[in-house]
Amino acid sequence: MPIIYHDISALQAALQSYRGHQNDSQVGLKRIALVPTMGNLHDGHLELVKIAKQQADIVVVSIFVNPTQFGAGEDFDSYPRTLDEDVEKLATVEADYVFAPSIDEMYPVLPPPTSVLAGAITAQLCGQSRAGHFDGVGIVVSKLFNIVQPDMAVFGQKDYQQLAIIKQLVRDLSYPIEIIGAPIVRAADGLALSSRNQYLNAAERQIAPVLHRELQYMVQKLKSDDQREQDFGSLLAETHQRITEAGFIIDYLEIKTDELEVVANNATASTVEHKNLIVLVAAWLGRARLLDNQLVTVNQSF
Amino acid sequence: MPIIYHDISALQAALQSYRGHQNDSQVGLKRIALVPTMGNLHDGHLELVKIAKQQADIVVVSIFVNPTQFGAGEDFDSYPRTLDEDVEKLATVEADYVFAPSIDEMYPVLPPPTSVLAGAITAQLCGQSRAGHFDGVGIVVSKLFNIVQPDMAVFGQKDYQQLAIIKQLVRDLSYPIEIIGAPIVRAADGLALSSRNQYLNAAERQIAPVLHRELQYMVQKLKSDDQREQDFGSLLAETHQRITEAGFIIDYLEIKTDELEVVANNATASTVEHKNLIVLVAAWLGRARLLDNQLVTVNQSF
Repeated sequence: MPIIYHDISALQAALQSYRGHQNDSQVGLKRIALVPTMGNLHDGHLELVKIAKQQADIVVVSIFVNPTQFGAGEDFDSYPRTLDEDVEKLATVEADYVFAPSIDEMYPVLPPPTSVLAGAITAQLCGQSRAGHFDGVGIVVSKLFNIVQPDMAVFGQKDYQQLAIIKQLVRDLSYPIEIIGAPIVRAADGLALSSRNQYLNAAERQIAPVLHRELQYMVQKLKSDDQREQDFGSLLAETHQRITEAGFIIDYLEIKTDELEVVANNATASTVEHKNLIVLVAAWLGRARLLDNQLVTVNQSF
Repeated sequence: MPIIYHDISALQAALQSYRGHQNDSQVGLKRIALVPTMGNLHDGHLELVKIAKQQADIVVVSIFVNPTQFGAGEDFDSYPRTLDEDVEKLATVEADYVFAPSIDEMYPVLPPPTSVLAGAITAQLCGQSRAGHFDGVGIVVSKLFNIVQPDMAVFGQKDYQQLAIIKQLVRDLSYPIEIIGAPIVRAADGLALSSRNQYLNAAERQIAPVLHRELQYMVQKLKSDDQREQDFGSLLAETHQRITEAGFIIDYLEIKTDELEVVANNATASTVEHKNLIVLVAAWLGRARLLDNQLVTVNQSF
């Protein structure tokens, strides 16, 4: 079973023995990986831990439902908290430490006067519909990095914009931490795993995989020879309509470069300059806001 | 002589051997102190290094004229750069490492999209007259903390607001770093040492100690029994006039709590609620902007 710490100082004391240079002993100089989560773990999270275990000697999983990344009216209060079950699951993938701090431990002053802002990259996609969300991500990830001082950290690609923001944070703030993006883990029917999937009722759960199927269909069209001249704007409009007709309320559906730069709506797969693209969607189904995305490389024949 | 590194990775490799747990060897588990500077070192800086040497095993002095903390029209270009002389001086106080990165090494993207903002505490004093200054301090100090990962860092109390901002940063971002504030070092005539003192011509240099003398005089008045009923507003106005008559152009002259909270102008030493106060001044003399401050505890008889 992983060892659980609720206090920053106790976790740091435990990790201290793995750091640094050691010439003549088994102890010391272990690679430490951090897997930040909000708990309520599913197989997607466990995949992050498995990847961390492959790359590092010691894996710390943080479980903290971070209040500063939830907006007013969002699901902070109802977000599922299942620490005991989470720890059981983490034992199966041999996580070494669980860091599960209280809000007071993480935020002696709440909200903290100091902020870590990612700038222009947040003025789009989830940053547009969830005001302040990425500011909360910025500060909590900075805190976790400073508390754990890991050699690497693993984040899921389902939250693609978050991953891009964290890579930028690490570069801009000179964190000596390798950021590993882990592929989306899906249910058998293609739905991207998410703690928020449990907000879906049975009928909605049947509909939910439409999101992934429609993204796949778009990606096929982007890669197919006979449809490479269709402009992205009309492709997006078609897909938007089909997802809406399935019962979703779309927050955004966009084609961007894989670095989240703007791609013109009148571009086509054959004319677009940047070949590495990503299709991203956020959509409400009942009271669940679902995210999905799909990377695609287009126009490789030229 | 200290060892000089210009590259982040080389410095980190050198420091790695001092970190962590070590049972059976002289190497390892050394306490590392960081002394961040912009170079052009004077005895005030050397005092920071001496304090660091007393508290830590290994002292890293960073020398970097940080472009992001200079505003348009400020003295970034003319700020004195004297690396060779600085290293000579650091040898006399046994600094272990000098970290002197290039701008490109520190800022692969300039300005960096990510920002570290200290919030309300910057909306006063130097933050008011130097727009963006403390944003630049926030990011460069965060970067230096992440690069060096020190156990402690030493900053001068001359830049009192900066010190308060850094203490807040460490608390809010959970840096495992002890922040040590070092007393102001003064010339024999009382002028606080500063690299910018060399912008003074001979006549101005004669006038400059007025700043310290007037702060001392204010502090004496605040502590004297027969003047404890004078309100702070009129005390500040008198001092403001005398400093201005000496030839300074005052940027600000204020009484604050030692946590930089507002103190009402109609308070007096006998009525003020918070007893630990600070008098702070910033004033131009010729082309030098000089800072000084003086802590004072008032009304201890009640």
